[in-house]
Amino acid sequence: MSVLAEFAMFPTDKGESVSGHVSQIIKMIDDSGINYRLTPMGTIIEADTMEEILAIISKAYKILEHDCNRVYSNIKLDIRKGSESRIESKVKSVEKKIGEVKK
Amino acid sequence: MSVLAEFAMFPTDKGESVSGHVSQIIKMIDDSGINYRLTPMGTIIEADTMEEILAIISKAYKILEHDCNRVYSNIKLDIRKGSESRIESKVKSVEKKIGEVKK
Amino acid sequence: MSVLAEFAMFPTDKGESVSGHVSQIIKMIDDSGINYRLTPMGTIIEADTMEEILAIISKAYKILEHDCNRVYSNIKLDIRKGSESRIESKVKSVEKKIGEVKK
Amino acid sequence: MSVLAEFAMFPTDKGESVSGHVSQIIKMIDDSGINYRLTPMGTIIEADTMEEILAIISKAYKILEHDCNRVYSNIKLDIRKGSESRIESKVKSVEKKIGEVKK
Repeated sequence: MSVLAEFAMFPTDKGESVSGHVSQIIKMIDDSGINYRLTPMGTIIEADTMEEILAIISKAYKILEHDCNRVYSNIKLDIRKGSESRIESKVKSVEKKIGEVKK
Repeated sequence: MSVLAEFAMFPTDKGESVSGHVSQIIKMIDDSGINYRLTPMGTIIEADTMEEILAIISKAYKILEHDCNRVYSNIKLDIRKGSESRIESKVKSVEKKIGEVKK
Repeated sequence: MSVLAEFAMFPTDKGESVSGHVSQIIKMIDDSGINYRLTPMGTIIEADTMEEILAIISKAYKILEHDCNRVYSNIKLDIRKGSESRIESKVKSVEKKIGEVKK
Repeated sequence: MSVLAEFAMFPTDKGESVSGHVSQIIKMIDDSGINYRLTPMGTIIEADTMEEILAIISKAYKILEHDCNRVYSNIKLDIRKGSESRIESKVKSVEKKIGEVKK
């Protein structure tokens, strides 16, 4: 099974720039060993089970919790049974059809 | 603490109409006793902790898992510390400013 | 055709409470005559065409633009051809299957 | 001004695999000359104005419209005034704080 998630989480009570808080979450994800890609609009993570994905989201909030009064998050999930890792193959499947793209 | 979540989850391998699968998830939410509201675009749930919210999302996928090969989900979280239930008060706070709205 | 959209838009450089800014957007939507419902997590709007929906989103940003330096928005679209208005019927279709729900 | 959007759009009445339809949208984006990056969970586009972004979303639906009865889309917007292009710099700003990440 491949569970792909795209998620963003940030405080909304800390003013215009939130990269300090967001960086702490990315560091936790990088340290966790989970397969991920950082994008300009969020982080894509991939695991074999929903539980691993939900555990990362829970940990992300714990990082912001003590310092932030209000937190917003957005999560998309694309879950496919009987599938190998798709974190590389989804983009490749588009490139097979239309040629090289920016990524 | 008030954790508000808006979430939608549906199979994408079952054709155009998915209300049968979605209804099973709503039934689980209604049975769970969690505070919720069904909207035309998803379900809004509210709890005191992230863990309760993530447990509902995990259960929702378990309902679809055996029958569906591919599932898509979208989740928004608005988390506010030191706050009472907001599932009614957020709309009322808008109405205090601009008068009665459709809801 | 029925184009249903759930959307939220708010400044992230104005501190914890944003209901003043959000209320101005809801007032514009109410004044516009478009079919809508306000929920605790966003506004659901429905129109016959994509253009009407995108025009509302464009106007919403114009309301925030002069006063806000950074704005975040989240939009979900569910577009169905050959369909009557679904802003009421989607919830009713769930209730036909599992009985009355909270809405 | 920098308007960053992450968006996904796909039919839900065409079965489990939608990469054929999605590829047509990516090709339109690539041909349009807009700044973009394809990710495993959607496409990130960046423009100087909201209008350019909304025009791409409108064109994306037109591509699917004739062939698809039901279409789902998810769009996130991060709009920042007085800002240069951020499609590269947001990730770099995280790397300045925590070192190199996967992207």
